[in-house]
Amino acid sequence: MRPTSFAGVALFASGAFAQYYQRLGGCPSLGCVFPPDQADFLPGQHFDIRLEVHSPVNGSEAREGVPDPNFKFTIGKKGQAGVAVTEFFDVEEAELENWSFSWYEDLFAEDAETPSLVNVTSKAYRHVALYEPGEYEAILTYYGEEQTVANWLVRDIPKKRRAKNVVLFVGDGMTTNMITAARLIGHKSINGKYQTTMQLDKFPVLGHQMTHSMDSFITDSANSATALYGGHKTTVNALGVYVDSSEDPFDDPKFELLPEIFRRQHPNAGIGIVSTAFLADATPGALTAHTRDRGEYDHVISTFLEGLTDYEWTEFDGPDVLFGAGAENFITSEDAPRDYYQLFAEKGYTLSLNKTALDAVSNEERALGLFAVSNLPTWLDRNVYPDNLKELGNHPSGSGEDALDLPGLKDMTVKAIDILDTRRHDEGWFLMAEAASIDKQMHTLDYDRSLGELLELDDTVKATIKRLEELGVLEDTLVLVTADHGHGFDVTGAVDTVYLEEQEDDRDKRRAIGTYQNSGLSQYTVEGSNALRYSEGVHFPSRWDPRYALHAGTVAFPDHRENYKVHKDGPRTPAESGADGYYASYKDAVSGFLINGTLAPDANQGVHSLTDVPVFAQGPCQELFGGVYNSNDIFFKIAECLGLAETKGGAHDGEEGHCSPKY
Amino acid sequence: MRPTSFAGVALFASGAFAQYYQRLGGCPSLGCVFPPDQADFLPGQHFDIRLEVHSPVNGSEAREGVPDPNFKFTIGKKGQAGVAVTEFFDVEEAELENWSFSWYEDLFAEDAETPSLVNVTSKAYRHVALYEPGEYEAILTYYGEEQTVANWLVRDIPKKRRAKNVVLFVGDGMTTNMITAARLIGHKSINGKYQTTMQLDKFPVLGHQMTHSMDSFITDSANSATALYGGHKTTVNALGVYVDSSEDPFDDPKFELLPEIFRRQHPNAGIGIVSTAFLADATPGALTAHTRDRGEYDHVISTFLEGLTDYEWTEFDGPDVLFGAGAENFITSEDAPRDYYQLFAEKGYTLSLNKTALDAVSNEERALGLFAVSNLPTWLDRNVYPDNLKELGNHPSGSGEDALDLPGLKDMTVKAIDILDTRRHDEGWFLMAEAASIDKQMHTLDYDRSLGELLELDDTVKATIKRLEELGVLEDTLVLVTADHGHGFDVTGAVDTVYLEEQEDDRDKRRAIGTYQNSGLSQYTVEGSNALRYSEGVHFPSRWDPRYALHAGTVAFPDHRENYKVHKDGPRTPAESGADGYYASYKDAVSGFLINGTLAPDANQGVHSLTDVPVFAQGPCQELFGGVYNSNDIFFKIAECLGLAETKGGAHDGEEGHCSPKY
Repeated sequence: MRPTSFAGVALFASGAFAQYYQRLGGCPSLGCVFPPDQADFLPGQHFDIRLEVHSPVNGSEAREGVPDPNFKFTIGKKGQAGVAVTEFFDVEEAELENWSFSWYEDLFAEDAETPSLVNVTSKAYRHVALYEPGEYEAILTYYGEEQTVANWLVRDIPKKRRAKNVVLFVGDGMTTNMITAARLIGHKSINGKYQTTMQLDKFPVLGHQMTHSMDSFITDSANSATALYGGHKTTVNALGVYVDSSEDPFDDPKFELLPEIFRRQHPNAGIGIVSTAFLADATPGALTAHTRDRGEYDHVISTFLEGLTDYEWTEFDGPDVLFGAGAENFITSEDAPRDYYQLFAEKGYTLSLNKTALDAVSNEERALGLFAVSNLPTWLDRNVYPDNLKELGNHPSGSGEDALDLPGLKDMTVKAIDILDTRRHDEGWFLMAEAASIDKQMHTLDYDRSLGELLELDDTVKATIKRLEELGVLEDTLVLVTADHGHGFDVTGAVDTVYLEEQEDDRDKRRAIGTYQNSGLSQYTVEGSNALRYSEGVHFPSRWDPRYALHAGTVAFPDHRENYKVHKDGPRTPAESGADGYYASYKDAVSGFLINGTLAPDANQGVHSLTDVPVFAQGPCQELFGGVYNSNDIFFKIAECLGLAETKGGAHDGEEGHCSPKY
Repeated sequence: MRPTSFAGVALFASGAFAQYYQRLGGCPSLGCVFPPDQADFLPGQHFDIRLEVHSPVNGSEAREGVPDPNFKFTIGKKGQAGVAVTEFFDVEEAELENWSFSWYEDLFAEDAETPSLVNVTSKAYRHVALYEPGEYEAILTYYGEEQTVANWLVRDIPKKRRAKNVVLFVGDGMTTNMITAARLIGHKSINGKYQTTMQLDKFPVLGHQMTHSMDSFITDSANSATALYGGHKTTVNALGVYVDSSEDPFDDPKFELLPEIFRRQHPNAGIGIVSTAFLADATPGALTAHTRDRGEYDHVISTFLEGLTDYEWTEFDGPDVLFGAGAENFITSEDAPRDYYQLFAEKGYTLSLNKTALDAVSNEERALGLFAVSNLPTWLDRNVYPDNLKELGNHPSGSGEDALDLPGLKDMTVKAIDILDTRRHDEGWFLMAEAASIDKQMHTLDYDRSLGELLELDDTVKATIKRLEELGVLEDTLVLVTADHGHGFDVTGAVDTVYLEEQEDDRDKRRAIGTYQNSGLSQYTVEGSNALRYSEGVHFPSRWDPRYALHAGTVAFPDHRENYKVHKDGPRTPAESGADGYYASYKDAVSGFLINGTLAPDANQGVHSLTDVPVFAQGPCQELFGGVYNSNDIFFKIAECLGLAETKGGAHDGEEGHCSPKY
């Protein structure tokens, strides 16, 4: 929000202005409004309002420690006088809440163990909506004359529905750089001309989206998925809410998400969720969950099952399809008190625990498929080094056996489409399918596995387009492929792994690295004695262990060793815990050389990066997705395609029991 | 080319198959055809043919050492019988040439000093052209039955001219990642919504181009610029030619370049060349030069002046505008035997040696502007730390004084447009403007300076669009902004530079690095006591040295130290020469921590990367530039916009004295 009391508080002139740590993201002044300044809304999108007034007891912003209990909050169309929030939305006055929290102003304060204490007064107005497009001013007045002004925009979006179905692929952590590298190892090139290209390369429309979050320029997957599905950027770790300063992870101000809006307006609309991650993870979870803590896995699974139950909110009775991994959150345990397998079954879901069952499951029924504990093993392990599937004890039954009959992203996605189109052909459907381990394997610097996942995503996109065509719905379906954030990955040459191994000194080993003309050509598509063969038209490397391997890296990493060879014995663990944080794992790359880290010593893996990520679009509304835009714009573009804008007096106005404004 | 004798030679089964080093790029078999297999041509584009037959004397491919003097070469439309090249193009038989060269098959061979010797027979057929669109087969038959087949494609491109003018901006080394970082430091964001964005963000059409070269997947700027301006990917260091194995750097097979074709077809077409680099550098040089060695600076400058003189070739009488740096190549010296200042003056060029003169120069005359020896000082040094301009002794007169009255990319580009549109309003014009030091400063890990150059490019694009509008030619002008290759750069968080400095241990210093939510917001747009102020609408950081600085890096680097602070005393030198290669420079970042390199020890700077780079397009034909395509496709797209395809029987057929085919 805009700190109108800026000069008085003079925060930025203070040496202790918070950056590494923040008092509360989205609230640089002492009066906080959520949704904050610059928030955008779909007409008719439900949301909560949270107001806070802070009184720091100590630290650089210290005042008397008594937060204002008499703050005022008004809303009005821009240029008109605002009225009290209770009048504007015709809601009852909220109860005044009080709490305290503490934080460190910077690393010096943390080292000195001198936290800053903040006392808070707060109110929340829940379940309201704005229908009339235009600019609004929401003004919090506190401590007498101080104001925080939040400029809100209800976007003026055409209401005509243009797409019947939407498939949104999320390549978690996927960047243009990774797509380029995947193309290099998966497709043959002759004298600089690719003989085949990625399915992504064939999309007619390309865009870039900015992934930064509301209060930091690096996002996590919860925050970024929330922007994609909800149209609001928020704070790291938050799902479907803005983050307030209270202790309760479930009382933060919510906003309505795409599946909720789509189902509210079209009760027979289909919803599908597919991921190679554990299903309580952020990217699938952000479709239905409302909590500021992505670690509240049971909450996530419960919202898949029955939507939100602790507040009056849009009803959500579960997706048509829910396929992925993470069986541990469905089986009764300390963390998961309920037996979700049984609860989903009671609601009519079929249950698949392996690929054979998945293939056989009815397309008529709602379907739950859990194929492993934790994340699904990677494409590389499933297809090239299947011995690594043994002794994982990851059977989704929780029996402790190995899950060996595993589907991949393609199997899950194509089956999901079959079910969605069988059940919801008339009203249309929305499917989100996530290639989760592009990100997960990039975190552990396992570039081979990450690129394998990316090629599997591309293969899945190709199969999806084919199946949509077979079903006769390709022309009615918007297909999007994008990411939620990047990693700072790139390829800079080739490494003679044989030469590297023969050298003893770390600097001599580095002589094996060839750049520019010494990169030569990709050896991953040249068949050798250890070549893995695939059928025509399937584009994965024909070998993963050429003598001349990719010289790949990321820009920020823990201490680690590098020999640039594929890890045949299973996913990589680059760093191990030591005396004061993490150190390079010797056994991770015995023949390699040491690279000391460029992250804090408590990092055992790489991190997300700033870069804009690509958006590939084809189908109805594809033209909306060209050029450069913000991540949350994708929500508005999809909503526009599906005709979800709901201006006042529309068919759905007032039906749902939420509070509508007088203006 | 396709090795049809593949099984017989069995190169790939050999342990010594060349990758780090190659016998000859584009020629994996023993018979070489240039242009090679998969080459594409603009209808009517002039080119040379070079044939070679190799006989390795020793090494893994060793044979008797007598290369075939009786090789045959035929050309024909695909599916038809080929005829001898002399008949096909109605040219005289070429003389047989002989030479030898040696190379190392790999690093072991280099360490053992056991080069492989290759004897060569060769012929060259020069200055031919193909006019009829379609597929051709060019077949070299040697050693009796062995064949190398080159499949050539003459693209079927509409001849109707759609754009009067083309402005091609090349952000050398610029990636999407860098654009994202530049936006972060140059534009204000409130709660995740940018209040202003880059000019690039406003382009209606976005594409990605693949930058890899013909014979290695990492390109340099010569090779990549050649693809952009000539439609042919080639080898690292080559300008306007394919690289043969002979010693002479000027006898390699040429192909015609965009400025040559445009001028040949439209004698009154305007050509402008602007760069912040020394003008003999690869990106400007590739517009007119034909040599396999980008280091032949005098050749480059001579082609600016008078085109090619040592072979019968398309006449090129010099650009209308030539602005940049690198005065050392224009002043008489050992390397530059001719006084180019005088030679250009004799051809009617005005000469500007500083910004004042540039501003005052006539728009009616051809203009040469040289503003410094070496590269132009960076935007950051010119505008924020001008003390660094002193004692450089870089005055373009060669006097040894400092060049202090310096234009920037914007000044040069806008003036170039004024001249081009004054002189060539009727016939139209082509301008290439290069932001060279995005790349140069990225090489030395000086991210601040590199991003300053990128913001200057964006500011220049903005000013260009404004000036085109003022001149009334915006609607007739295709504006493109792209890069020639990337660097593996990204941003992953923020660094508390004060905390870092206060720690003594390298690992403790790394605790200053904040990721995710601890990245916070950009402090570069927050005005502080040391803020630099610019007028409204000019988007550069308001401060370059915030306490919380960008945590930025590249994926491949020499040994260096990092404290993440802007280098106020001048451009960065991260590594210094030591006993066996380069080591981290202590004085480059005294307060920083050590990061050991991930490149060969002889590297003193970072290297180019693989990533596809963005293409931003607006104007006539903009729709051609969406989606994903090859770098050399950009040449064909621009040629299509300018209507440069020249099929047989067209107005220009046979006029130029070159050989046209019978087919």
